[in-house]
Amino acid sequence: MEFNYKEHPHNRFNLLTGEWVLVSPHRTKRPWNGKVEDISHNNRPPHDPNCYLCAGNTRADGSVNPDYKNSFVFVNDYSALLPDTPDGEYSVGGLLKATSQKGICKVISFSPRHDLTLAQMEEADIKAVVDVWQSEFNEISKNKDIKYIQIFENKGEIMGCSNPHPHGQIWSLNSIPVELHKETIQQENYFKEHGKSLLSDYIQLELEQKERILFENDDFVCLIPFWAVWPYETMIVSKRQIKNISDFSESEKVNLANIIKKLTSTYDKLFNVSFPYSAGMHQMPVNSEDYKGWHWHMHFYPPLLRSATIKKFMVGYELLANPQRDITAEAAATTLKNL
Amino acid sequence: MEFNYKEHPHNRFNLLTGEWVLVSPHRTKRPWNGKVEDISHNNRPPHDPNCYLCAGNTRADGSVNPDYKNSFVFVNDYSALLPDTPDGEYSVGGLLKATSQKGICKVISFSPRHDLTLAQMEEADIKAVVDVWQSEFNEISKNKDIKYIQIFENKGEIMGCSNPHPHGQIWSLNSIPVELHKETIQQENYFKEHGKSLLSDYIQLELEQKERILFENDDFVCLIPFWAVWPYETMIVSKRQIKNISDFSESEKVNLANIIKKLTSTYDKLFNVSFPYSAGMHQMPVNSEDYKGWHWHMHFYPPLLRSATIKKFMVGYELLANPQRDITAEAAATTLKNL
Ligand SMILES: O=P(O)(O)O[C@H]1O[C@H](CO)[C@@H](O)[C@H](O)[C@H]1O
Ligand SMILES: O=P(O)(O)O[C@H]1O[C@H](CO)[C@@H](O)[C@H](O)[C@H]1O
Repeated sequence: MEFNYKEHPHNRFNLLTGEWVLVSPHRTKRPWNGKVEDISHNNRPPHDPNCYLCAGNTRADGSVNPDYKNSFVFVNDYSALLPDTPDGEYSVGGLLKATSQKGICKVISFSPRHDLTLAQMEEADIKAVVDVWQSEFNEISKNKDIKYIQIFENKGEIMGCSNPHPHGQIWSLNSIPVELHKETIQQENYFKEHGKSLLSDYIQLELEQKERILFENDDFVCLIPFWAVWPYETMIVSKRQIKNISDFSESEKVNLANIIKKLTSTYDKLFNVSFPYSAGMHQMPVNSEDYKGWHWHMHFYPPLLRSATIKKFMVGYELLANPQRDITAEAAATTLKNL
Repeated sequence: MEFNYKEHPHNRFNLLTGEWVLVSPHRTKRPWNGKVEDISHNNRPPHDPNCYLCAGNTRADGSVNPDYKNSFVFVNDYSALLPDTPDGEYSVGGLLKATSQKGICKVISFSPRHDLTLAQMEEADIKAVVDVWQSEFNEISKNKDIKYIQIFENKGEIMGCSNPHPHGQIWSLNSIPVELHKETIQQENYFKEHGKSLLSDYIQLELEQKERILFENDDFVCLIPFWAVWPYETMIVSKRQIKNISDFSESEKVNLANIIKKLTSTYDKLFNVSFPYSAGMHQMPVNSEDYKGWHWHMHFYPPLLRSATIKKFMVGYELLANPQRDITAEAAATTLKNL
């Protein structure tokens, strides 16, 4: 019997983190008597007087939202990071180590319409969101304290989203978070060795193999990475090596909106439900080195596995030992392509 | 204003993984309109004719469970790992890398009683489970293919547990999983530098500081690690530097049962609900080097944050960038100690 990575249990190497994921292709047949999620109801009004993101409403700190027409950005009323934290360290015998962390947490309402999602918005309106991501990135990076800017969205109750109004977040901070540290090392090592960005070579290979590619347009590729952890995890990668969203051209902003629309509306078709996920961009740290290998990309981590109500649990073995998945990246790509 | 790690946002260093966790002590006041979990019902019968773990019932593969009195162990009918996977590798241009993975997945029923949990079992019956963990570990490690043995339990629907009958799992495999690889490096580096195990020095410091200690007996300490990620995460550490459960003495087995009983029954009191968690032992790899610094310990990762129905979501920022928590380890320890 010969080893076949589409059939036999195996590990795949994540080029971006340098870590491995355990894949068990044969395990999809296991019956499920475990937790079944509720489907969140989608009959929301276009304007909800109790929503802190809707236009004209009052927020927790007493301020009143403007009567905005596209996007609206404000500092999170319950920020996990604060700009005025005093610098400092705590250390006992090298065993208890803590360092102060400064940062800014912002919220972006994607639309005044309470009842939409990115998937349901017009491409032109998604483009307006991309414009805001870019201008916020530019604005925040002027603050020399800030070293990393994480733009992301939690969508759906199952992903801990506490308000169904379409919105995302930007957490920026004066140090480089763990995942970004790993991706920086992997990309810099590759660039030193090959003189090209890791993701340029990777997407070229994927475009030749075709199997894991979902969509492409002039500026972006959307694929299931070979090392995906979540069942329908995807990644959008810029064709050109762009280091961060600040360098996006007008055409790239239009095409990012285009591919986000394609991906999110395909997701919605998979289980016939507004598809939950956490998504976010990874890009080069700011006010720091000019890393030669950094290549902008966006991850989508959706939790659903079998249906609208059965998700993948990252628990026991996964938390204690190693991420694990059942369906292969190739099987997931085939399913999404056939929609 | 001086930096105070109990009040200001900060990062804490995880001695075992070498990674950091973001702590936002001020963030507990944020209101919650997000997902609220169902409370799983606890009126289970002592024997359920439809449960594949109850004595005398037939399992998926047609075999009939014996009329067991304490624990019962069998190979998982839907194993994520299989013992007869052919060896092999797949590699394309160093960009797509996969390696075959062999292993064995076992299930351990902790008791013939369908209606109990570890927390509700008698200490003597938990001791019988510890005996089985030890004998299974000894048995599995005779297989020279096996390099790591992960003993764990997923408890509660919210933790992806698909059957409420009290049970755990053992996944063993012919390579060292990511988390264990990190812990091996950290412990070996410390041992090389200090000639003592990292966790010996760490628990000594914690026993002096007292603040994060929940319980101790002659052989074990149970504490909230300084770098805990989950809201009420805890760790049980052996006082003696034991490398794996195979080396536990009779008194250590009795005292592990004792401290597990104390911890799990305290957890149940926190929100007045059968407390969900993933728990598992970390121990030295087998059939491999004799790592000088390895020190047995057991992690408990419980998801609940505010109540029986509101959990911590490890989503967006946490998945994309860095683990994050709101309440401090010290605040969590105080809450658990006051129960
Ligand atoms: O093995 P079970 O109970 O079917 O499955 C559960 O535990 C496994 C090991 O942590 C996970 O991979 C699954 O996602 C979870 O649902
Ligand atoms: O900021 P929110 O929407 O209140 O909170 C949500 O996203 C955060 C960032 O990923 C997480 O820390 C929270 O656990 C989650 O509930």
